[in-house]
Amino acid sequence: MLDQIRRSHGHSRVELADTTGLSAQTVSNIVQRLLDAGIVEEAGRTSSGRGKPRTTLRLVGSSRYAIGVHLDPGLITVVVLGIDGDVVSRHARATPTAQDPSDTVDVLIQDIEMVLTESGIDRTRIVGLGIAAPGPIDVHRGIVLDPPNLAGWHRVPLRDAIAAATGLPVVLEKDVTAAAVAEKWTDEADGAQNFAFLYLGTGLGVGLVIGDEVVRGGSGNAGEIGHIVVDPDGLPCACGLRGCIAVSCAPLPLIEEAERRGVIPAERPDDHPTGVDAAMTRLVALADAGDDGADELLRRCSEHVARALAVVSNLLDVDRIVMGGPLWDRVGQMFTDTIPARLDELRAARGVHPVTVSGTVLGSDVGAIGAACLILDEALTPRTTSLLVPSA
Amino acid sequence: MLDQIRRSHGHSRVELADTTGLSAQTVSNIVQRLLDAGIVEEAGRTSSGRGKPRTTLRLVGSSRYAIGVHLDPGLITVVVLGIDGDVVSRHARATPTAQDPSDTVDVLIQDIEMVLTESGIDRTRIVGLGIAAPGPIDVHRGIVLDPPNLAGWHRVPLRDAIAAATGLPVVLEKDVTAAAVAEKWTDEADGAQNFAFLYLGTGLGVGLVIGDEVVRGGSGNAGEIGHIVVDPDGLPCACGLRGCIAVSCAPLPLIEEAERRGVIPAERPDDHPTGVDAAMTRLVALADAGDDGADELLRRCSEHVARALAVVSNLLDVDRIVMGGPLWDRVGQMFTDTIPARLDELRAARGVHPVTVSGTVLGSDVGAIGAACLILDEALTPRTTSLLVPSA
Repeated sequence: MLDQIRRSHGHSRVELADTTGLSAQTVSNIVQRLLDAGIVEEAGRTSSGRGKPRTTLRLVGSSRYAIGVHLDPGLITVVVLGIDGDVVSRHARATPTAQDPSDTVDVLIQDIEMVLTESGIDRTRIVGLGIAAPGPIDVHRGIVLDPPNLAGWHRVPLRDAIAAATGLPVVLEKDVTAAAVAEKWTDEADGAQNFAFLYLGTGLGVGLVIGDEVVRGGSGNAGEIGHIVVDPDGLPCACGLRGCIAVSCAPLPLIEEAERRGVIPAERPDDHPTGVDAAMTRLVALADAGDDGADELLRRCSEHVARALAVVSNLLDVDRIVMGGPLWDRVGQMFTDTIPARLDELRAARGVHPVTVSGTVLGSDVGAIGAACLILDEALTPRTTSLLVPSA
Repeated sequence: MLDQIRRSHGHSRVELADTTGLSAQTVSNIVQRLLDAGIVEEAGRTSSGRGKPRTTLRLVGSSRYAIGVHLDPGLITVVVLGIDGDVVSRHARATPTAQDPSDTVDVLIQDIEMVLTESGIDRTRIVGLGIAAPGPIDVHRGIVLDPPNLAGWHRVPLRDAIAAATGLPVVLEKDVTAAAVAEKWTDEADGAQNFAFLYLGTGLGVGLVIGDEVVRGGSGNAGEIGHIVVDPDGLPCACGLRGCIAVSCAPLPLIEEAERRGVIPAERPDDHPTGVDAAMTRLVALADAGDDGADELLRRCSEHVARALAVVSNLLDVDRIVMGGPLWDRVGQMFTDTIPARLDELRAARGVHPVTVSGTVLGSDVGAIGAACLILDEALTPRTTSLLVPSA
């Protein structure tokens, strides 16, 4: 019912009874409990012209909060979301170059504490913390296994470490899935959602929502696209094939190619994602300034991405593709200009069914926001209302 | 409730009330209606040791039937299924070489009539007819659009043509999706199903069941895998890439390669799927007899299939892969021997989560059986019970 109140932007008790199928008395009782707990407030009155005016309800954003943490190999982001989904506080920083995971975990914990302190939020109002991390992960045990882009990470029990340090309930989710959760949460379209979220970060991955359900897969590791071959003329890959996304259009190989071609100077001290990210910024700036070499590389990258999205679209016949993540603010314009038409040429169902391609409105915080939405989702669904509204 | 009776193999009224959540009186009323209509019968009595013995119920297979038609470019299959899912009659023949779709539609109608006549089934007991056809299709209009392997077919209104000729309610579904429906229907495993069905026919495609739901996609055209690149050293493809499945390990390119290499004689008059199928039989027989050239080609094919399945597994993190279709009786042994280990090497979640690989128990009729299951599914679900049990 809280989810209905959130999505409706002003349902009355009568409308809630209609949409939930609960009796008027049940709705009234639950609403009273929520009003008493300060989670919902009466927002005003509407009149439909007939009958008596109805009191509309809305969530009180400041009544409960969730924390979202996104551990990208290049960027650590912490957000605090109110129960209405608004971001009330955020912090982002480059992921430490240290290869000892415990140092990075300490940084995560410091950032969480700092954001909480700065926000001034009463800790008793925080219902939980979600972490988005690169896969593969062990969802049930809350362990980050051995992500190819997180050097030195091997079977790190991240969930329990954060839970012990914060005292909060913690869930761990794959980064791309968290991004899809955020997009699903934000979208207010009617009807079942059927989309792929292309996450553009240190690695490229896809979060999936099919028939309105987030696709996690049997072990929570759905969304790996790194070994889709997008360039048969490309570089050899560790998997034994050639021209996989992982060696063709992910940021590191793209920058390495730009350096080989002399488009940008080869001056990075190592392959840490932060330096790669800075080089990406430089490459995009060059292309914007009219540099043909930079422009060609970025166009080739968008062609590769279109080919990967064609594989996903042909397999799943999605209605739309949303793109986002830390790289989006730089490659968004190029991708938006070139990918839709190219994707359509490669789609088997192009004559039957359009696919819309757009950027997320959530910006580069989408992973962290999705991680927090996981907690709010739990809090807003009936089975765990107890988490949100103490029976006392 | 009928679906519960079908799956349970002997629930009593009490157990039906437990599993459906309906009241004992409601269950009793519905069961009485089904008994009166002859759709359900009392199968015996069980005693749990305490309380009075319970009367178990089962479907009467001969009470209602559904027809399933599979139009594969190489093979036309018609089956009749009883409401319990048993195949009571079947017929298969090579798809006519004529390029005029109306000739093929006439053959379909003749086959349907023949199977019905031979089975001796009372036509009033047939609740509908499902058609499985190669994509792309227009599900809503019941039109076969322009499948690459069905020469001459362009926007053929197959559903309405068959409905007009038979007087039956008809649904059209993509072949690979129908195969997944059949597999889902047959499987009696507990828990949500999460699998990919690799259909091996004139073309290769994938039917998907995710979180216990059949994935149809926004336009009913999910399951296209023809342009996944499996061989970067392979032949150029019309899509602009190289080494796509469609030009690497589908039957026609495989046979063409075998002919180029002199493994089998190049004696086919044309590329019709029937001749390709016969050449496949010959190639497999040669490999079985110890011919190294034939063995190498089939091993290469299974390697390519493993690579495509890795793309599907990595994207969706499925629990199992089932393989079947017209080619399965010949390539099954090779694929079963080689694909599981190779797939595991290529899976991102290999350390977290096993994926079982097996052949369907439904044989090469799986598409036709799935098409009939679509009708039985409709008949067995509450919203369309009216279709099955006339209120008179």
